[in-house]
Amino acid sequence: MAREVTYTVRVEFGDCDPARIVWFPNFFRWIDAASRHFFIECGVPPWHETEKTLGVIGTPLVDTHAKFVKTASYGDTLAIHTSVAEWRGKSFVQRYRVSRGADAIMECDEVRIFAGHREDGAPGIRALPIPPAIRALCE
Amino acid sequence: MAREVTYTVRVEFGDCDPARIVWFPNFFRWIDAASRHFFIECGVPPWHETEKTLGVIGTPLVDTHAKFVKTASYGDTLAIHTSVAEWRGKSFVQRYRVSRGADAIMECDEVRIFAGHREDGAPGIRALPIPPAIRALCE
Amino acid sequence: MAREVTYTVRVEFGDCDPARIVWFPNFFRWIDAASRHFFIECGVPPWHETEKTLGVIGTPLVDTHAKFVKTASYGDTLAIHTSVAEWRGKSFVQRYRVSRGADAIMECDEVRIFAGHREDGAPGIRALPIPPAIRALCE
Amino acid sequence: MAREVTYTVRVEFGDCDPARIVWFPNFFRWIDAASRHFFIECGVPPWHETEKTLGVIGTPLVDTHAKFVKTASYGDTLAIHTSVAEWRGKSFVQRYRVSRGADAIMECDEVRIFAGHREDGAPGIRALPIPPAIRALCE
Repeated sequence: MAREVTYTVRVEFGDCDPARIVWFPNFFRWIDAASRHFFIECGVPPWHETEKTLGVIGTPLVDTHAKFVKTASYGDTLAIHTSVAEWRGKSFVQRYRVSRGADAIMECDEVRIFAGHREDGAPGIRALPIPPAIRALCE
Repeated sequence: MAREVTYTVRVEFGDCDPARIVWFPNFFRWIDAASRHFFIECGVPPWHETEKTLGVIGTPLVDTHAKFVKTASYGDTLAIHTSVAEWRGKSFVQRYRVSRGADAIMECDEVRIFAGHREDGAPGIRALPIPPAIRALCE
Repeated sequence: MAREVTYTVRVEFGDCDPARIVWFPNFFRWIDAASRHFFIECGVPPWHETEKTLGVIGTPLVDTHAKFVKTASYGDTLAIHTSVAEWRGKSFVQRYRVSRGADAIMECDEVRIFAGHREDGAPGIRALPIPPAIRALCE
Repeated sequence: MAREVTYTVRVEFGDCDPARIVWFPNFFRWIDAASRHFFIECGVPPWHETEKTLGVIGTPLVDTHAKFVKTASYGDTLAIHTSVAEWRGKSFVQRYRVSRGADAIMECDEVRIFAGHREDGAPGIRALPIPPAIRALCE
């Protein structure tokens, strides 16, 4: 079974919109933090270190699919349960379940890559093969 | 053919992350603005007015699916082409194509609802049937 | 001596800009959360409750003055030490010292008001006299 | 008289908080964009170019002082009038007046530096003397 890491978020007043519920782009802000924390908790060094050792500058998104189940508001504490649902050749599926106590709030499946600088030095990024050292830490 | 409205975004320094590319939650910030501008351009009044006339307080997300094709960075100008791809009973699919000149940057399909306050006065929201007056303006 | 409450922040990748340091508007995001947490920790109810009991809908800023001493980056944990430095008739000075371990990162003095809806029902807000019940909880 | 450049902002739904007014950290987001646009309009190249030619990686804040005069909400269009009020040896004062038509909304004076990487290669930044080539473009 895939390793799962939990990241906790306090919803703040400024995270909410005039409808008094979380403005949805903030969920992606938290999910991005949960993604990075997953790797940190698994023992992967921060990206500014992996840039030097593995050429990995981060894990940008290729595709994301999210379902919003219930609303949240300020004062809520959310738990983001994160795992890697699938490892592919040059990408992986990172899965998030966001809950408030027993309530499911949001679910998200992302396809991400391990990105490096382009080999020709031009601006932009390219997908690297999954670094085995990172995968071994995360399973 | 569905009506299409274009919303223009300037990418700023602070929209970019240490990898020097747009931090992806900002795309959802812009897409949410493009969603609202679509309705404004179609002649739908702002939500604080429709709250009084139609009980509509906004169009929260139920589901979103986005593909990231190319990266963008500060100095770029992005065009977000927005349309309603499908009208359903109590929801609709809003479609976004984000481009920089001829380059496709990102695509997104959202399921949104027209939300109203709950009838029992409790916190939270509920999905309203598509208001015909709004649909007529948007087709 | 004024009561002090500490709010803790994890700096995330997406909080940082292409210079790899915290993009400064994020400090104000955290300070605003620290402001609210100060009142919560002191026992003041959330604003949606005080709106009903005291007419207070929040504590918007009138004036803010911040000094940035050292930079911070992702992976850092910041402590925000918050107090009310001065109570005035219709405003108060809220003071923040942001630190990373022994390092001072940022200092900020804000003038805030307790805001209520306008009496004539028009849009916009007005400053209320400091509610004695709130002040008593915070000293 | 100092050169003034105007940057225009559309206030969006998601920029507003449950009190239905602009959540104040967003003003600093816009002001930071206005700061960069000031230099761009004056003919200064983007920071990723000045990093190579002048060692300047950006203009981080040292000190900011803002007054909030009137509230703004979504649907508003704001004009940010930007100038350099004072040039110092290793810093400068950038001044912003934010207005909505004839209404003053917010004023801000910032002390910023031209930042470069540290000479010893360590993380962090240092203040550079004002580059005369940049100052000449901005006066």
